[in-house]
Amino acid sequence: MNAEKIPDIIIGRLPVYLRALQRMADNGLKTTSSQELGEHVGISAAQIRKDISQFGEFGKQGTGYSIAYLLDKLKEILKVNHIWDVALIGAGDMGHALVRYQGFTNRGFKIVMVFDNNKEKVGQKIDGFSIEDADKLAERIKSSGIKIAMLTVPAPAAQSVADKLVQAGVKAILNYAPISLNVPKSVKVQYIDPSIHLQRMTYYL
Amino acid sequence: MNAEKIPDIIIGRLPVYLRALQRMADNGLKTTSSQELGEHVGISAAQIRKDISQFGEFGKQGTGYSIAYLLDKLKEILKVNHIWDVALIGAGDMGHALVRYQGFTNRGFKIVMVFDNNKEKVGQKIDGFSIEDADKLAERIKSSGIKIAMLTVPAPAAQSVADKLVQAGVKAILNYAPISLNVPKSVKVQYIDPSIHLQRMTYYL
Repeated sequence: MNAEKIPDIIIGRLPVYLRALQRMADNGLKTTSSQELGEHVGISAAQIRKDISQFGEFGKQGTGYSIAYLLDKLKEILKVNHIWDVALIGAGDMGHALVRYQGFTNRGFKIVMVFDNNKEKVGQKIDGFSIEDADKLAERIKSSGIKIAMLTVPAPAAQSVADKLVQAGVKAILNYAPISLNVPKSVKVQYIDPSIHLQRMTYYL
Repeated sequence: MNAEKIPDIIIGRLPVYLRALQRMADNGLKTTSSQELGEHVGISAAQIRKDISQFGEFGKQGTGYSIAYLLDKLKEILKVNHIWDVALIGAGDMGHALVRYQGFTNRGFKIVMVFDNNKEKVGQKIDGFSIEDADKLAERIKSSGIKIAMLTVPAPAAQSVADKLVQAGVKAILNYAPISLNVPKSVKVQYIDPSIHLQRMTYYL
């Protein structure tokens, strides 16, 4: 296994497999096949076998995959066999929805800090969190060693906040602001913009 | 131009170009180059020229692209030169955040109906919308001719709601529920699951 050589498109599918396997495990299943997993995720069995085999031999011809074992392996590969602390910047509607979202912790993530630059919001509570002053963001993130941030600020503010996050040592940004960010190569950015996803579908309508 | 032959990965980049160009136009710019656009979106100038040339000759060597013209063309290609009505199903935290989201209309979309299966929510207002009874979803969507839906229901409910949407004539689903959906080939699904995006980044950390 050589992490450098595995194409990003394969890495992108692993979380989808992990999610489906976790669901099977929650439903009490013990083993599965690439065929069955493929039906759940809408990807061919051959592609799944090929993707998974990049990381070693996790299944047996004829008996398929142990779900618990494959779950453990995928969590290890994706480094979500522990919980990552996450900082959220921007306590608007989307920020609130994400703080209240129940689905992060059992997927490897926990929002532990929430920042906003609106002084009237600072000190307010969301689900037990005190909203903190965005002016202290760099200092707080640096001292706590947080590597992952979610950005739910308006587009015009996003780049300058991203710059501060990078300076504070953040290495992965999930950006909800509808704007492309310029960051150093060593920092990963993923984008969530519902209009982009919708436009990608309307082309085909 | 043959829509069938253009790879989906190119289609996926067009909304990103559109977003950056709209931002340039909002900032008062009149023309741009593939180089400049590339810097905004983090994609090479050569790739941008190649992608755009799939659809015709929209720029001139030396003078670059007219932003207004390219905007019009991209909107036409992506079929967002008019506003699509969208139904939202699931009036939880995420549903509320999306209904309040200001960024859809100038990108080609407008949420016009909101459904929930919780009878206590039915009739409540979100930003002027009355939440409607999910039991009437199929009938209402069919009679209004809506083709696009956003799904913000819990994972266990998502597939059965998706089935109803498909039966009602919906052709594009933006799914926020953390589960893969089985739909006919003629129906497009895009997924938004923040944990998937985060896991895709932790691999590299």
